[in-house]
Order: sequence, then C-alpha cells, then structure tokens
Amino acid sequence: MKKILVLNGPNLNRLGKREPEIYGRNTLEDIQTMLDQVSTSMGVKLEHFQSNHEGQLIDRIYEAADSGIKGVIFNPGAYTHTSVALRDAIAGSGMSFIEVHLSNIYKRESFRHHSYTAGVSIGVISGLGIQGYMAALHYLAMYS
Amino acid sequence: MKKILVLNGPNLNRLGKREPEIYGRNTLEDIQTMLDQVSTSMGVKLEHFQSNHEGQLIDRIYEAADSGIKGVIFNPGAYTHTSVALRDAIAGSGMSFIEVHLSNIYKRESFRHHSYTAGVSIGVISGLGIQGYMAALHYLAMYS
Amino acid sequence: MKKILVLNGPNLNRLGKREPEIYGRNTLEDIQTMLDQVSTSMGVKLEHFQSNHEGQLIDRIYEAADSGIKGVIFNPGAYTHTSVALRDAIAGSGMSFIEVHLSNIYKRESFRHHSYTAGVSIGVISGLGIQGYMAALHYLAMYS
Amino acid sequence: MKKILVLNGPNLNRLGKREPEIYGRNTLEDIQTMLDQVSTSMGVKLEHFQSNHEGQLIDRIYEAADSGIKGVIFNPGAYTHTSVALRDAIAGSGMSFIEVHLSNIYKRESFRHHSYTAGVSIGVISGLGIQGYMAALHYLAMYS
Amino acid sequence: MKKILVLNGPNLNRLGKREPEIYGRNTLEDIQTMLDQVSTSMGVKLEHFQSNHEGQLIDRIYEAADSGIKGVIFNPGAYTHTSVALRDAIAGSGMSFIEVHLSNIYKRESFRHHSYTAGVSIGVISGLGIQGYMAALHYLAMYS
Amino acid sequence: MKKILVLNGPNLNRLGKREPEIYGRNTLEDIQTMLDQVSTSMGVKLEHFQSNHEGQLIDRIYEAADSGIKGVIFNPGAYTHTSVALRDAIAGSGMSFIEVHLSNIYKRESFRHHSYTAGVSIGVISGLGIQGYMAALHYLAMYS
Amino acid sequence: MKKILVLNGPNLNRLGKREPEIYGRNTLEDIQTMLDQVSTSMGVKLEHFQSNHEGQLIDRIYEAADSGIKGVIFNPGAYTHTSVALRDAIAGSGMSFIEVHLSNIYKRESFRHHSYTAGVSIGVISGLGIQGYMAALHYLAMYS
Amino acid sequence: MKKILVLNGPNLNRLGKREPEIYGRNTLEDIQTMLDQVSTSMGVKLEHFQSNHEGQLIDRIYEAADSGIKGVIFNPGAYTHTSVALRDAIAGSGMSFIEVHLSNIYKRESFRHHSYTAGVSIGVISGLGIQGYMAALHYLAMYS
Amino acid sequence: MKKILVLNGPNLNRLGKREPEIYGRNTLEDIQTMLDQVSTSMGVKLEHFQSNHEGQLIDRIYEAADSGIKGVIFNPGAYTHTSVALRDAIAGSGMSFIEVHLSNIYKRESFRHHSYTAGVSIGVISGLGIQGYMAALHYLAMYS
Amino acid sequence: MKKILVLNGPNLNRLGKREPEIYGRNTLEDIQTMLDQVSTSMGVKLEHFQSNHEGQLIDRIYEAADSGIKGVIFNPGAYTHTSVALRDAIAGSGMSFIEVHLSNIYKRESFRHHSYTAGVSIGVISGLGIQGYMAALHYLAMYS
Amino acid sequence: MKKILVLNGPNLNRLGKREPEIYGRNTLEDIQTMLDQVSTSMGVKLEHFQSNHEGQLIDRIYEAADSGIKGVIFNPGAYTHTSVALRDAIAGSGMSFIEVHLSNIYKRESFRHHSYTAGVSIGVISGLGIQGYMAALHYLAMYS
Amino acid sequence: MKKILVLNGPNLNRLGKREPEIYGRNTLEDIQTMLDQVSTSMGVKLEHFQSNHEGQLIDRIYEAADSGIKGVIFNPGAYTHTSVALRDAIAGSGMSFIEVHLSNIYKRESFRHHSYTAGVSIGVISGLGIQGYMAALHYLAMYS
Repeated sequence: MKKILVLNGPNLNRLGKREPEIYGRNTLEDIQTMLDQVSTSMGVKLEHFQSNHEGQLIDRIYEAADSGIKGVIFNPGAYTHTSVALRDAIAGSGMSFIEVHLSNIYKRESFRHHSYTAGVSIGVISGLGIQGYMAALHYLAMYS
Repeated sequence: MKKILVLNGPNLNRLGKREPEIYGRNTLEDIQTMLDQVSTSMGVKLEHFQSNHEGQLIDRIYEAADSGIKGVIFNPGAYTHTSVALRDAIAGSGMSFIEVHLSNIYKRESFRHHSYTAGVSIGVISGLGIQGYMAALHYLAMYS
Repeated sequence: MKKILVLNGPNLNRLGKREPEIYGRNTLEDIQTMLDQVSTSMGVKLEHFQSNHEGQLIDRIYEAADSGIKGVIFNPGAYTHTSVALRDAIAGSGMSFIEVHLSNIYKRESFRHHSYTAGVSIGVISGLGIQGYMAALHYLAMYS
Repeated sequence: MKKILVLNGPNLNRLGKREPEIYGRNTLEDIQTMLDQVSTSMGVKLEHFQSNHEGQLIDRIYEAADSGIKGVIFNPGAYTHTSVALRDAIAGSGMSFIEVHLSNIYKRESFRHHSYTAGVSIGVISGLGIQGYMAALHYLAMYS
Repeated sequence: MKKILVLNGPNLNRLGKREPEIYGRNTLEDIQTMLDQVSTSMGVKLEHFQSNHEGQLIDRIYEAADSGIKGVIFNPGAYTHTSVALRDAIAGSGMSFIEVHLSNIYKRESFRHHSYTAGVSIGVISGLGIQGYMAALHYLAMYS
Repeated sequence: MKKILVLNGPNLNRLGKREPEIYGRNTLEDIQTMLDQVSTSMGVKLEHFQSNHEGQLIDRIYEAADSGIKGVIFNPGAYTHTSVALRDAIAGSGMSFIEVHLSNIYKRESFRHHSYTAGVSIGVISGLGIQGYMAALHYLAMYS
Repeated sequence: MKKILVLNGPNLNRLGKREPEIYGRNTLEDIQTMLDQVSTSMGVKLEHFQSNHEGQLIDRIYEAADSGIKGVIFNPGAYTHTSVALRDAIAGSGMSFIEVHLSNIYKRESFRHHSYTAGVSIGVISGLGIQGYMAALHYLAMYS
Repeated sequence: MKKILVLNGPNLNRLGKREPEIYGRNTLEDIQTMLDQVSTSMGVKLEHFQSNHEGQLIDRIYEAADSGIKGVIFNPGAYTHTSVALRDAIAGSGMSFIEVHLSNIYKRESFRHHSYTAGVSIGVISGLGIQGYMAALHYLAMYS
Repeated sequence: MKKILVLNGPNLNRLGKREPEIYGRNTLEDIQTMLDQVSTSMGVKLEHFQSNHEGQLIDRIYEAADSGIKGVIFNPGAYTHTSVALRDAIAGSGMSFIEVHLSNIYKRESFRHHSYTAGVSIGVISGLGIQGYMAALHYLAMYS
Repeated sequence: MKKILVLNGPNLNRLGKREPEIYGRNTLEDIQTMLDQVSTSMGVKLEHFQSNHEGQLIDRIYEAADSGIKGVIFNPGAYTHTSVALRDAIAGSGMSFIEVHLSNIYKRESFRHHSYTAGVSIGVISGLGIQGYMAALHYLAMYS
Repeated sequence: MKKILVLNGPNLNRLGKREPEIYGRNTLEDIQTMLDQVSTSMGVKLEHFQSNHEGQLIDRIYEAADSGIKGVIFNPGAYTHTSVALRDAIAGSGMSFIEVHLSNIYKRESFRHHSYTAGVSIGVISGLGIQGYMAALHYLAMYS
Repeated sequence: MKKILVLNGPNLNRLGKREPEIYGRNTLEDIQTMLDQVSTSMGVKLEHFQSNHEGQLIDRIYEAADSGIKGVIFNPGAYTHTSVALRDAIAGSGMSFIEVHLSNIYKRESFRHHSYTAGVSIGVISGLGIQGYMAALHYLAMYS
C-alpha cells in the first residue's frame, strides 16, 4: 500500500489555539484525522510528523526516504523562509514534495513571500486552508 | 446553478504547442473540457475566457461580477508579475479568486517569484499542472 | 472653443462601486457631469474617454493630439506605476498633461509611490478626490 | 471666521531670486498677497509663516493647532525629503494638511521623489506653481 | 518566397513627428518602404505590423508563427522594459527574433537599459537608426 | 504567586567565558541568582531555561503558555536575527515578551541591527548588561 | 550631588495630546515629575530640557558636558532616524547616553528601525513607556 | 576689499576638545586666527560664522549673498550627509562654495561618503586638516 | 596526543547517496576513515561528529572546547549561509576553525556565496572534495 | 581613402579555440580577413588591433584619433562591464564608436548586461556573430 | 614531467614588505622556493610568473595553455574582485585553476568577499597562508 | 632634496584636447611645468609619470617607494572608481598619497562618487582644477 508522509513544521502543533483569524480553528489533529479518512478511500496510508526542530524535520525526511516513501506533503511553516538545510534535504531525498501553507503567504509580511523550499518541490498551494492539504494528497496519490 | 469563471491570461492559448517541457502537452481546450466534465458532476457551470490583452481581462472580470458570478479561477500568466491594473480589478470586483500556475514559479526566473495578483486572491496553486485548476474548482465549488 | 481631454485609465469605470472607502462614492459619470458643468462656464469643451486597455489610451492620446487638443487631464490609474509606453505617448504627443489621482498615492502600497507618467507631465494632484480634477481643469483652462 | 495657515519651509523666502527657471519669478510676498485676495472672497482668513528652521516649523504647527486652526497649506521645501520630525508633527497636530510644491518633484533629482510628509497629509499638489496653493486653498476652504 | 515579419510596438506609429531629436525624422512608412525595396532584391517578402496594444502584438506573433514565418524584426518600444508577456510569446513562438531600437538605449534613462525581450532573441541592435532594421533584415535573410 | 519565564537563547550558556569584552564577566548562573533574589522581594517566581536549540526554545514557550505563565524575559541571542519560527511562537503564545540583549546591538555588525522577534514583543532593552534583565523584570512584575 | 540630564527631542512636548494610542496619556510634565520624585530618593538631581530644534539639542548637550553632567537620558524622537549631527554631538560630548523610546520602534514603519544615535550610546530601551525612562535612570544613577 | 565667508556647521565649535584623534587639537578659534592672518596678506577680509542649527546656516548663507559676498568656505559637518535644504540654499545663493572636511570622509563610516552639498559646490577638500581651509582660501581669493 | 574535531553539518550524513554529481560518491564514513588513517601518521587523534541540528552542533563545539580540543575542521553545510548562532559559537569557543566545503560554493546559487561562519574562522577551502578536509587537517596538525 | 579601426579587447585573440559553443568557430584572423574583403569593395581601409591590456587599448584609441581615423568598430570584451577608463577614452577621442558583441549579452550572466562603454558609443550590436562586425562596418562606412 | 604554473597577481611582488600583519613575512621568492622543493619530490615542475598587469596575466594564461600546462595555482590578488577579463581567460584556457588567497577574504572589507574568478575555478583556498599554495599543489599534482 | 612623485592615470595624457568643458584647456605638460616652477621655490624636486596602464601605475608606485620618495600626488582618473589593485598598492607602499581630481566628481555620474583609492590616502581634493595639484604639493611639502 502506497505511503505518503504529512510533515508539519514549527508552530503547527498550536493550530486552532494560535491566531485563529489567520490559521483557522481546526487543530492539527483535526487535519490529520480528515486526511486519514480521505486517504483510506484512495488506498493510501499516511504517516504524520510534526516538529518545531529544523534538525528533526531533516532527520525525518531521510528516514522516510529510507523506508520507501515516495511523496511528502510538507508545510514547513516559518522554515520556508529561512532554511537552506531543509531545501538541501528535500533536494537530496529523492522524494516528491508538495509545499502547503494554510494562509496565503502573499497577503502577509514581505519576508514571507520568499521560499527556499518551493524551488525544489513539485509545487506550492497557499491560502486554501485544509483544502490545500487535500489537494496535495490527491496529486501525490495519483502521481508520486 | 452556481457559475464560476475560468480565466486564462496571455500565451495560454498556445498551451500544448509552446514549450511543452515547461507547460505540458495538453491544450487549453483539453483543460477546459476536463474542467467542464468535473464541474457538471458538482452542479457548477463554468464560463471560459482567454485573452492576451490585459484590458480585455479587466473588462471580463467586471462583466462576470455584474452577471452574478462569485468565483474565478485565474491563471494570469505573465501579467501575474507586471499588472497592477489586474490587481485592482480583482480587489474591486467583489469576487473570490484563486490564482493558478501550471508550472512552479519558484523554479523559474526570479522575476516570476513576485505576484501582484496573489495578494488580493484567496490563495495560489503553482506547479500542479491541470490538477491545480481542479483543486481550485473544488475549493470554489464549496466555498465561493 | 478650447478643448480639453479628460482621460481615465483602468478600473475607473467602476468608481462608486469599487472600494468606496478608498475612492469615494461618486461614479465616473458623476465626475464627468460635474466637470462638464464647470467647464462650460469657462468656455472650455471637454471630451471624455475611459479605457482599461493601455493600447487604447495610447491611441486616444495621439488621436487627441491630431484633433488639436492641447491639454489633457489624465488619471492613469494603475498604469501610472507600470507603463513606460504611456510615458512615451505623453512625451511624444506635444500636449500638456496634468496627472490626477483620487486617493493619496503616498498613503498606499509602496509600489504606488512611483510614477512613470508624472515625470513627463506638468504636475500631479493626488488625494483631493474630485477636486483634483477641478484644479487640473482650472489650470489647463488658463495655461494650456 | 475660518483660519488657514500657509506654511512655507526652507529657501522659500528666496522665491523669485533663486533659480527662477525652476521656481518662477514670483516672490513669496507676491504669492501671499494673491492668496490673501482670493481667501477674503471665500470668507477665510490666512496666516502666513515661513522659516528655514525645521524646529520653528514644528513649533508653528503646534501653535496653530492650539489656536484653533483646522487646515494648513504646507510647502515643506527640502524638508519634504528628510524630516521625520515634521511628519510626526503633522500626524500629531490633528489638523488637515495639503502638501504643495511649486515645481514637479518627479522631474527633478530622484532623492526628491520621496516624501516623508505626504503620507500623513490629505493630498499633494506638485508642479502647478502658484495655482497649486490656490487649489489647496479652495479644497481646505470647503472641507477642513 | 521567404517571409519576414517587421513588428513595431507602441508609439512607433508616431515616428517622424514625435521627438525627432531622439528618433530621427523618418516616418514608420518611410522605414517600411525602404525595407521593402531592399528585401525585394534579396528575394524576401516582408509583412508589416504596428500596434500600441501589447495584446495585439502577442496575437500577431502567434499568427505569424502559424502562417509559417520564421524570422521577426521586432522593435518592442517601451514594452521592451515592462512586458514579460511578450517575452513569453517570443520564447513560445518558435521563430527567430532580432530586437531593434532606433536610439541607443544605454544613453537614455536607466529603466531603459533592462530588456525582458532581448534574452529570448538572437541579438539586439540599438542606436543605428534605420540601419538597425537593415542589418536585422540582412541577418534574418541569411540565417532564419 | 505570579510566574515569569527567563528564557535565554544560543551561546548564553557560555556567558562569562565567551568574549567578556563584549558580554561581561558574569555567568548565566550569576544572572539567574541575582534575578531570583530581586524577584522574591517582588512576590514573583522565576523559571529559567536556556537552550542552543531553536526548536527547544519554541517548545518551551508553548509549555510556559500552557502552564499559565503570562510574561517572558527573552534574550534570543543570535536567533533574534534569523528566526521567523521564534517570531511566530511569540506571536502565537499569547504571553507578553520583553526582548533583552546584554550588548548594544547597534554597536555591532549591521546584520545584528535587524530583529525578527522585537516586532512581536512589548519592547526591547539592549546594551545595559544585567540591568537590562532587571528592568524587564520590573516591567513584567507590574504590567504582565 | 550627581546630576543627570533628561533630554527630549521633537514632538515630545505634545505627549498626552498627540496620538495617545501610540504614546500613552501621560504628558511630558507628568513624566518629568515622576522621574524627579524617584531621582530624589536616589540622591540624583535631574535637569530637564525639551526642544523641537536639532540645533538646540546639540547646544544643550555641550552645555551639559561643560557643566559637569556625566549621564544623559535621551529620547531623540524622530531625530533618532535622521540626525548624524546629534550622533556626532553624543560621541563628542564625553558623556554617557541611554536612548529611550516610549513606543517599540520595531513595531512601526521600517524607517524607524534604524538609529543613528544608538550606535554611540550605552544602550537602548524601546517600548516600555515611562518605565523606559525609569530603567535608564536606575542605570545611570549606578554607573555613570 | 574682497570678502569671503568661512562657514562651519554642527559640532565644529567643539574642535580641539572633541575626538582629537579624528579632528586634531586645534580649536575653531585657532583655525579662524590662522585664516585671518593669511587672508590679510592676500587683501581679503574674512567673516566667520559657526552654528549647530541647520536653519541658521541657511539664513547666514542668504545674508552673505545679500551683503555682496561672492565666495564661501563651508565645512557643513554632519549636515553634508543629510541636508537637502542646505544644498538648495547653496544652489540658490549665487555664491561660489568650496566644501572642506578636516578628516578624510572616505576613511569613515559609509554614510559619510555621500554629500548632498558637494554636487552644488565648486569642489571638495577632505582630509587635509587646516590646510584644507587654506587651500580653499587660496582658490577663492583667486577665482571667486 | 593532539586532538582535532571533524564536525559535519546538515545533510552530510547523506553523502554518497545525495546528488553525487555535486558532492561525489564517497560516504561520510569513507571520508572519516581516510582522515583517520592520515591523522594517525601525524600523531593526531580525530573525533567525528555529524548532526542535522544547529543546536547540537553548537553544543558539540562547546563540549570540544571544554575537553581541551584546539582545532576544528568544520563543514557547516547549509548552516554556513543562515546561522549567526554558529558564528557566535565559533567566535566564543576559543578554538581554531577551518571551514571546508566539498563543492565550490561560488559555482552554485548566489545565496550560497555568503558565509556567516567564514569570517570567524582561520580560513576556507571550497571545491576540493575530500582533499579539502585533508588540507585542513595538515594545517591544523601543524598550527593549532 | 577612409580608414576605420577594428579594435578587439581581451580574450578575443582566442576566438575559435575558446568556448566555441558561445563564440563560434571563426578565429579573429578569419573575421579580419572577411572584413578586409568587404571593406575593400566599399573603398574603406581597415586597421586591426587586438590586446588583452586595457592600457594598450586606450593608447591605441588615442593613436587612431591622432592619425585621423574617424570611426571605430569596438568589441571591448569583458572590459565592456568594468572599464570606466575605456569609457573616458571613447568619450575623449572625438571618434565614432560602434560596440559589437559576438554573443547576446542579455542571454549571459547578469553582470554582462551592464555596459560602461555603450553609453558613449553610437550604438550596440549584440548576438549577431560576425554579422555584427559587418553591420557596424556598413554603418561607419556610410556615416562616420 | 608534469608542469604547473604558479601565477601571482598584483602587489604580490611586495610580499614580506607590505602589511605583514595581513600577509605574513615571507617574500614571494620564499614561497616560490618552498613550492619548488615540494614539487620536485612529487615529480612536478613549476613555472612561476607574477605581474601587476591584468593584460600580462591574461597573456601568460594563454601562453601556458599553448605550452601544454594543465594546472594553474592562481592568486589573482585584487583582480579577484574586479576582473571579468581574467574570468573569461580562465574559462577559455581549458586548464584547471585553483584560486589561492593568503589572507581570509571573509575577514576583510566586504568588496573582497566577491570573486569573479572563483566561479570558473575548481576551488578556492583562503586564509591558510603559504599552506594554501601547498594544498593547491597537492591537489593539482594528483588530479590535473 | 625632498622628492615628490606626481602620478597621473588614464586619459590624463589627453588633457587640453579631451572634453575641455569638463577638464579645462591646460595640457598635462602645462600642469607639470607649473608644478615644477612652484616646487623649486619650495626646495622640492618633482618626478612626473603618466600612464593609461593600471599595472604600470602600480609598478611605478613601488619603484618610487624603493627610491625613497615619501609623498605622491595622485590623480587616478577612472581607476579611482574601479581599481582595488591600486588601492592595495597605495596601502602597501608606505608613502603618503593625496588624491586629486580636476573636476568635481560629485557633479558627475553617480558611479564616479565612489573611490577605492581615497580610503587609503591622506585626503582628496576634487574640482579645483590645477589648484588642486598646487594644494596637494603645498601639503606634502610640509608634512610628508
């Protein structure tokens, strides 16, 4: 059965509590549950991982690659804008990444318009809330 | 029956002929046909418009707003990066826009990383090919 | 009888409907009517033209020049910030231009602080609403 | 009787003597006399003040606010481009300012295109010579 | 018989009338006549098109490509510096372009030193007046 | 009893050993002891945490928020200048932060003049050595 | 008895009247009274001076240095961001300066993030309101 | 008898006391005395003025112009780098200025490399200490 | 026996698997074995550490300093370009660092040309593959 | 008989050997021979000079001017982008220059888009290979 | 016998005399002697050349290429930062270059951080003094 | 007898012929003759050297240093703005340099406002024509 990793970066463990006017009221667990329900019907098995640590995210990426995972839905949070190390891990992992942001990064501070990680991903979905994760799942279920 | 406008900007009439290594081999007609098929099953009616003229795109946006359309799937092509006038039209139309790009704009020249139109849209989908239009359609069918 | 062209650029056909907190509640027709009333008392005849098309604005500038018009009140809207072609048309037309903006462009996004067209105009009036058009009309009635 | 302050910044005491090809041949006294004549017919009383000292201009702004003046026609001269302190005084005074420049600042050195003071004023008139002061007077007589 | 398109962008319809100290005294018709005379002797047939509309220029490029034209002499005028859409059309057309400017763009405002279109053309000729068109014609007659 | 978190970022575990000409000769333990003594007399209880790991600092911020702490004295060290993730954690925690730097960041390399974290804190104290922590403690004891 | 100068720059004479949502409701006299009360208990005598004139602030700095004052609490207001002359006066005076801002300058316009004066001061306190002056007083009472 | 104004800007009243490792140990009075001695032998009469106030320097420039002075030796101090108003006064005065700096501004902070005033002066002498004033005097005695 | 730390940053645990066209086919273990062989013959003992975690690298640096190590061969990987915290740790450790990059950073993306860590190291070797580590070892064996 | 100098700058002595995929397979001698053949038929005599030394190129320009040459075809190679001294020599020589580049400089690294020398030349031809020299020769034969 | 060129650029003929606190006390002759001794034991023959002339360095590079040399140890000195012509010569020569700097260029003025020549070399060694030449020699002896 | 070198850089051999509206009508020989006459009366012997070659100027600087010359009057011409190598030669020579420019570099193109060489010279004189050389001579005769 095909496996996809859903990887969430810093501060996403606070979803639903933190600034709901920007990020909505669903918790990360809510999102994970919804994705699991949909993925089952697609014959895909999801693994979930969240960390506030840049290094743990890198470690998890390589662990996934070694376990045969081919596709990753990745919300790098704030590391999108600052982490060359995650960019290198994505490029070096051999897996297909889709970058997802809950909010529209073009509506926020200008330092959030730049992404180190997007340039080594298949594509980016920004501003569609949970539907962004859903769309990424559909894509990877078909093409990764 | 809910109506959604699918708006395509400059050079997209050449899809399938122009630089297929970047944009894929489907023509714009192929994309429109696929979207029509999916939209019917959702109870949504699509209108299609493509133009290479910035002014015609603005005119069409206001015409759609006046005809009661609430949601627009918009691939502004190169005008993404240069048109403040389209940004103003989106902001002034009162409709919900989702910006779609076939290719991942973060993998291309740096002048394509900036978007005037994204900051007044709900969100952006970039790099997922036709699936990007599909995901935008799903979103607007539900929320617009 | 002296003739002056009142030229309005993209999105100004939506005045009164679009973002009234920025642009006010008068429609473009309201403005044109008010200007016509005042101009008559000055012995000046106004011509009005609005377009969302950069090319049509250029064409209209040359048409005015050929028909003997000497002065133009021009609100280039968003093309103020992006159109070198309109700058060239103004410079090449031999007519006197006054640039008018309804809102104060220095209170808005920084990409609106720059003007390609102002440097080839006599002057700029920004932020005075309809009174900006009136002041431009007074000036051109006297000096153009 | 409504009172409006006409405030002129550095070097404007030299009008008519200094670089007439840029600023014209009228002296500041000529401008003040013309404005007084027009204002009387509007039932408005003008106060005039010119200084080359940034601090005196700030002091005068607060003195005007304390004496009940509601509107100010302000040509900040070179301080337009360098004075954050004047910007703060305008914002803190509670009065309505219109910024006036005799010459078109967009036709001059690029360091004159930026204005600290415009962003806290109602609007800006640039390049219309004495008519710029007149237009500002008309506006403030009606709306301040 | 080989066909070459001579494409002229915004404001070039005013050649000879507009700022002759920069662009010379020949009209666009003069240039077209001279080019026609030379091309005949080379066994080449020219098509001519001028427009102030960015969208019409894009449309014309694709029309030429579809009609079997292989080479284009293109003076994009002000769109050189602002149009990503024309850049995309050139790149997507499959034809060979030579960019021509009547005046030397390096002697003018710094915003004219940048060219979006040059990077997807074979080469650029700037500052040689009508001789620039002639040289482009010679090149395309031989190599396109 | 009111609780305040004293949070120290990377390299501050080396205080007193590392570059004393910049940071002084007190160790982090010395600072913690002094703060504890003062806080007791204010009826405030301090918690102390130092880490060189960006992720651990984020985790600790959320842990503090969940345990009912309302105020944080934070010396983010070098992460001041590079961490958008810490900025997001501060903004999302709902607690009041005061940013403290032992040395005056305006006297050092220019890349230390920028702070991602200051814009979401109440205020910043820089250059006052241990007294900076004391002042922050006084403020939070009164207002948080 | 040790003497400290409390120096306030442009617009601070309007405290309490001007934009209280940014600067609070205390007047400058309130602040001076509070500081005097605290300083007496420390055996320190304060001198107070406020001016909107850059030159008067420079003159007062040198007068203080000549009268034997060793420490200065300085809120340079808007001159923080524009005055190299005040920077030179601070550096040349031989006295110890602490720079104080009532509001957090990192939360305001980006042109307020830069400080010419901070680099020649001991330290900076920003965003703590009146407590910022208090903290500066404590520091200078001990160390200057 | 020919008259030349020796104009010194902010902080130069502290020469000899302030940072002698940069500016040397001569006081401003020493410099003035030396210049007076030399000028007498040249048949030139010097007037001296120093101020820390930008506005007073502008006023003094116009006063000199009105009294028939033709040449000015000007050390604008820190206003060199920030004052557009002094630039305008120099340009508007009709007198010949030579800009003098005691220290070599290219050896100091980069914000001191720029000069607003130099571009409207005859020339600049920087780094030669008092000899810079001497050289300026020789030049103006001969050519102004 | 002299000890040297060989410190490798993020993603270097993937050497040989990850993008071999850039980094070569040797694994990190291969490199460590080769270095150990050479170091033995020099009477030097190597310690090896690799981590993807910025914080662990900082911790390890201080641990090495405390255990008496004097020299470090450091390949900071992507943290070269983003980590001020590592820069501070190097500067504060009192040890001698040589920075090594397997690939030539000047041949890659421009954001890799900048190094925060190089300015506090003895020197940098870039582009020589494993030989870069060897050269660093020779240097530190002799001079650290 | 009219004389024209063909001047080639650094590295052009390696044409045909060096990077033929960029510069083509013709040697400089081939180009010179072809130009000589064409020039003879035009009644023009060519002189040829190539040097890798900036100073020798400057010397040769003045020698040509002194010998009565009126026109120069100049390929400055890499000095195009770095030599202000050659710019001054061109401007000071009184001769007419046409700048030629074999490759299209807009297709190469961005530091090659800037030209110091183009702004003082009649025009620039870039990307047309040897035909660029031919076109320059035709132009100078007619107009210099 | 394999031959390697040791090429030293401007000012390196003054080594040992010039700024020994930056560059050390060895003369260029000392370095050349040490390199010769080591190279002999490797079966490599060195050629040495130093020049202050950019053009002579270019000439020498091509002369070496023509004589069959395959590897070059190059310290371009100040030309590292300014010479596009040397970059082109390296790229066009077909030889393998290693760039060496005696001092660590990242510890010096920021204009020394950029290198035109590094991007066309195999690698760069900076800050290791003479050992940098040695390491380059070892590398080229093995791989060029 | 004290010796001073008068060093002139590129294009200064053309003085009097080249652009006299900028540089005046005196030839370099005229300047040298005038300087020789004045220097004799000061008991100073001048040596003169001009070259268009950057490398020859560097060589000459070291030759002067070796022959015991202590002071140099240097007009680096265009190399002022581009030559790091000359900067290094000045810094490494141990001699005292005064930089002289005939025209005021702040009145010309902005790329001429920057000087690499000024930061390692005693001072700069710009815009005083031949008098600039005279003033430099007086200074060096007294102080070098």
